[in-house]
Amino acid sequence: MSVVELAPPSTQSTLARELSSLVTELFPICRSITGDGVRETLRRIQRIVPLSIQEVPSGTQVFDWTVPREWNIRDAWVKTLTGERVIDFRASNLHVVNYSTPVRARVPLAELKQHLHTLPDYPTWIPYKTSYYADTWGFCVSAERLASMNDPEYDVCIDSSLEDGYLTYGECVLPGESADEVLLSCHVCHPSLCNDNLSGVSVMAFLGQWLAALPHRRLSYRLLFIPGTIGAITWLARNPERLSTIRHGLVLTGLGGPGGLVYKRSRRGNALIDRASVHVLTHRGTALEVRDFVPYGYDERQYCSPGINLPVGCLSRTPFGEYPEYHTSADNLTFVTGDRLEDAYEACQAIVRVLEGDATYVSLNPMCEPQLGKRGLYSASGGAGERRDREMSLLWVLNLADGSHSLLDMAERSSMPFERIRSAAALLEQHGLIRDVNKVAGDASGRLEQTSGA
Amino acid sequence: MSVVELAPPSTQSTLARELSSLVTELFPICRSITGDGVRETLRRIQRIVPLSIQEVPSGTQVFDWTVPREWNIRDAWVKTLTGERVIDFRASNLHVVNYSTPVRARVPLAELKQHLHTLPDYPTWIPYKTSYYADTWGFCVSAERLASMNDPEYDVCIDSSLEDGYLTYGECVLPGESADEVLLSCHVCHPSLCNDNLSGVSVMAFLGQWLAALPHRRLSYRLLFIPGTIGAITWLARNPERLSTIRHGLVLTGLGGPGGLVYKRSRRGNALIDRASVHVLTHRGTALEVRDFVPYGYDERQYCSPGINLPVGCLSRTPFGEYPEYHTSADNLTFVTGDRLEDAYEACQAIVRVLEGDATYVSLNPMCEPQLGKRGLYSASGGAGERRDREMSLLWVLNLADGSHSLLDMAERSSMPFERIRSAAALLEQHGLIRDVNKVAGDASGRLEQTSGA
Amino acid sequence: MSVVELAPPSTQSTLARELSSLVTELFPICRSITGDGVRETLRRIQRIVPLSIQEVPSGTQVFDWTVPREWNIRDAWVKTLTGERVIDFRASNLHVVNYSTPVRARVPLAELKQHLHTLPDYPTWIPYKTSYYADTWGFCVSAERLASMNDPEYDVCIDSSLEDGYLTYGECVLPGESADEVLLSCHVCHPSLCNDNLSGVSVMAFLGQWLAALPHRRLSYRLLFIPGTIGAITWLARNPERLSTIRHGLVLTGLGGPGGLVYKRSRRGNALIDRASVHVLTHRGTALEVRDFVPYGYDERQYCSPGINLPVGCLSRTPFGEYPEYHTSADNLTFVTGDRLEDAYEACQAIVRVLEGDATYVSLNPMCEPQLGKRGLYSASGGAGERRDREMSLLWVLNLADGSHSLLDMAERSSMPFERIRSAAALLEQHGLIRDVNKVAGDASGRLEQTSGA
Repeated sequence: MSVVELAPPSTQSTLARELSSLVTELFPICRSITGDGVRETLRRIQRIVPLSIQEVPSGTQVFDWTVPREWNIRDAWVKTLTGERVIDFRASNLHVVNYSTPVRARVPLAELKQHLHTLPDYPTWIPYKTSYYADTWGFCVSAERLASMNDPEYDVCIDSSLEDGYLTYGECVLPGESADEVLLSCHVCHPSLCNDNLSGVSVMAFLGQWLAALPHRRLSYRLLFIPGTIGAITWLARNPERLSTIRHGLVLTGLGGPGGLVYKRSRRGNALIDRASVHVLTHRGTALEVRDFVPYGYDERQYCSPGINLPVGCLSRTPFGEYPEYHTSADNLTFVTGDRLEDAYEACQAIVRVLEGDATYVSLNPMCEPQLGKRGLYSASGGAGERRDREMSLLWVLNLADGSHSLLDMAERSSMPFERIRSAAALLEQHGLIRDVNKVAGDASGRLEQTSGA
Repeated sequence: MSVVELAPPSTQSTLARELSSLVTELFPICRSITGDGVRETLRRIQRIVPLSIQEVPSGTQVFDWTVPREWNIRDAWVKTLTGERVIDFRASNLHVVNYSTPVRARVPLAELKQHLHTLPDYPTWIPYKTSYYADTWGFCVSAERLASMNDPEYDVCIDSSLEDGYLTYGECVLPGESADEVLLSCHVCHPSLCNDNLSGVSVMAFLGQWLAALPHRRLSYRLLFIPGTIGAITWLARNPERLSTIRHGLVLTGLGGPGGLVYKRSRRGNALIDRASVHVLTHRGTALEVRDFVPYGYDERQYCSPGINLPVGCLSRTPFGEYPEYHTSADNLTFVTGDRLEDAYEACQAIVRVLEGDATYVSLNPMCEPQLGKRGLYSASGGAGERRDREMSLLWVLNLADGSHSLLDMAERSSMPFERIRSAAALLEQHGLIRDVNKVAGDASGRLEQTSGA
Repeated sequence: MSVVELAPPSTQSTLARELSSLVTELFPICRSITGDGVRETLRRIQRIVPLSIQEVPSGTQVFDWTVPREWNIRDAWVKTLTGERVIDFRASNLHVVNYSTPVRARVPLAELKQHLHTLPDYPTWIPYKTSYYADTWGFCVSAERLASMNDPEYDVCIDSSLEDGYLTYGECVLPGESADEVLLSCHVCHPSLCNDNLSGVSVMAFLGQWLAALPHRRLSYRLLFIPGTIGAITWLARNPERLSTIRHGLVLTGLGGPGGLVYKRSRRGNALIDRASVHVLTHRGTALEVRDFVPYGYDERQYCSPGINLPVGCLSRTPFGEYPEYHTSADNLTFVTGDRLEDAYEACQAIVRVLEGDATYVSLNPMCEPQLGKRGLYSASGGAGERRDREMSLLWVLNLADGSHSLLDMAERSSMPFERIRSAAALLEQHGLIRDVNKVAGDASGRLEQTSGA
């Protein structure tokens, strides 16, 4: 199978190259909601982040759903009677309708066409189709190729199996100081499609690597690499006791394609994850769109169902269905770039830093302003730009350190970046001017320091 | 008295013709806040909707007001000394200041002019004036006619009577499953003026006919055809025990003239009637204006006085005082159209359907989404337009069916029309996926079905 | 010292002239945060408003601060070796860095330049600099003058003293019917600068004169003429028991320069002082800007520190730092005008009238509207403009007189000026239609009447 390698521009960072490389490496694997493709993908991710691979037997009842039979495929083709492969699974795994039942037959063209899917508007692209819960088979093919198929009969083979087996997903728990958890989730069930969702898989794998390496985590983290819908439902059904400790969550998807970052709010609408994400994205200075929750999309649908109702948002670039390459062979290795993956990764880091760093302080000197000058915190002669911003951040923290404003509240009210407010709070805490209301005296545990990329 | 007949365009519906016909039939009657004109009007409406006619004696104290003496008029004129009627009540009942005291005298022109009212800006129009609570008389006349009156003296006659009698209003109660009431109110005290308010009278009469014919009403309905101000005050003063069961209300007025529908919110500002009306009008796709409550206008002034404070809004087209024909002879049969009356009637029906159909559900499958596909509620291959909207409505209802969102809440949050959300809820209820929190098990009573017009 | 007299235009009012005259008279005095300049200033203000002059010893601990040594200055100069004063305190007290330590020395030009401050962008202006909490000295000089100083050495003298003494401020309490207080505060520590802040000093002095002369005050008033920052901190530290009775407050500053009025909200954001100020300024019809609180600015910083958190806003024109003349010799007598001072004074009066006049009423006739016509409060034939507005104000007050809406609430909801609503309430109270919920029966005490200017 030929693979297009992403040409890394000379200016690309190491991280951007690593993010791209993982996408490239995972691209050829034929994934589905079950089967060996998912297992192979998860094993590759284990080299980056410590993942436990979970297997749930076919037939397991998970809420209103049942874990389906496991699907595997070895080969598939449509051949002329002279033996030429006119549709060949080995050229692209998109050619087979995902979850097709096995078939081996000689069929007339007219009958075959009932099983062929094309994209007339994009005649050179192969569509991506699935038939998870329908006993059927089919091929996806470019409209151009279909136009050239004029023989009266073809030999057809899908060498797949649908048998009792397992649904497979990857889970990684990174414990922190607190049992409160951040849930990160991405779907790993799509075959050779890059933006949807090797982009999310790659960003989340390297985020996990970074989180695992942190010297101190205030919060715990749970990373789920799962098949879409049935995987999220399965995890939720198997872990009812975990739900109450999940405080924040993010679904990562479609992060390497074109367009600025898009944040979709959780069902709750203004949970801390929503506020942190909007704040971070607003201050990153790049194109940004914030959308309200709708009960359609990725696995936030399950996490935000009424009986679950977790504060889980979704981060993407141009959302699914709003770019023509979506669910086609054009969502390939040239469609995503390492720079965009890195940009998304950094946005996620910044969101995590807000979740980690948010805290509530009280001023130990609340009556009037403390005299900053005598502590060397104030330049007597006033100042421009950077220094002025620093002084304003000190004044904001002092003014709002009343036990009822978190650092994120302060950042929102002052329109200052969270990191600036957090630095000001750290400095004031050092000088004994404010106190973290949740820290007991003598507790020397630091908070998450700003560390470099991956 | 010559009557201009509305020429019904060939495309006009039966309902539009009926709405117009009633306006045409009621137009010649000389109504006032008391008297035989109101009685005749109510008797005509009784043919459409079952109305009880209430009589309240003159002198009855109603809160801060007193029911006035009853006014009736037989004829009125200003004649030249040669006997020519230059102002003639028989040509238009607007010629007499409504509630004029009787008079029969020969008066010099200069003195007569003290009693004449004109509209200099519209020289061919006759203004409409009243003197309910002042013992005086007068004539209204076009500026053109006045200009031609140059005789030194005229004979004047107003053959009216002001005597102890009754204030008359019409009331119709349509009981429903619940004692909770919807109040519909319109004023019936204006003489030959079409938009203000034979339009409201006609729309409300046919709404009543429709409501009375419904096989099932969840709510009860009370229709008041009353003289403006004193009529509303009288009803409120006589029915203090009714106030607590009125849950929603609407004053109907000025519905046949030009301009899109205008909804004026109740004093409460965001009562269910306000939300339902704004929702319905927003989704009808025609010009719409929503205004906040002000303590001036029609009988919503009384219904929304501080000690009454009922959730009563007002529906009209271009509001009173904002079109030049208001309170003049130009508010005639050519000023209102059957199509506009029908459009307003349909808007009212849609508002009633929201009030009837609103309900709160809980999902019986709240943990993750239920599998719609196995129930035939989901098309596996995705879809466009209509089908996509239907599926989205199912997802919205499932997602918000948590016992704390009403169907109107869901319609507002999803920006979908209420009827689509209601249909989705009905389908999901059939499939046992959601349950109406206020319906006891085994209760088979259906809700209001969408029925055709009148 | 030569003084530029403000040329009063012939159309200027008496008050505008008085406001200007006070600025002119105070202009030459060399004020600082301590010292005789403040004392002389306060003694002059005592002629207008009854002020007690408070003296707080150097070294007094006030929260996190210490009252500094008292600074006084007699003369200062830079002379050529031939005795020519090239920089002369007698020409402008801005020439000396405020709080400079004494010095008398011959210094080489290069060393002298370390102590000279200029404004290169405005070569003819002298900057204003201070060194309150640093033991240093310096001169401020125009860039032009500095360019002409080419001698190798100069004789330098600052005949100042920094000794234990007092911090001085002026306080005036005007008791009212209620112990609830309105705090008015302005800083009196700047030397020859007109807008910042002789403008605020003058407006507040004449406001005090007006308040003192009122025949009846519902609220009590406390006027503070204080050195910026340290003065406010000192007052707050000395008066902890007063804080709970301060209900509203306003810092007055920069009221005579260009630009419309700018209101900066208190830290609370929507306190009554904020609502009253925004309402008044909105209805004055001149340029207006409302800004949210930020913890930088004038003494509202101290009044709004987290442990104090008083509802104190700040009224100014173009705020400090947003006009080039700020803290330079160009903020002189030609920079402020009497008309602008008077306009600001009137705005303050109107704000005070809202605070004084706000009250909550209940209708004594809450069931439907009362019949205004029989009380002569309603013109039967409708009306235009002024009369229509008057009637609408009566209807608004009657409609919202339910014990839960204040007059300011009504003014805000009706978009009518507070004074119109208040007049309507007074009229309705006279007619026995409404009752002040906080007035006991038989209490004849009137509320603040609208009186003429100063």
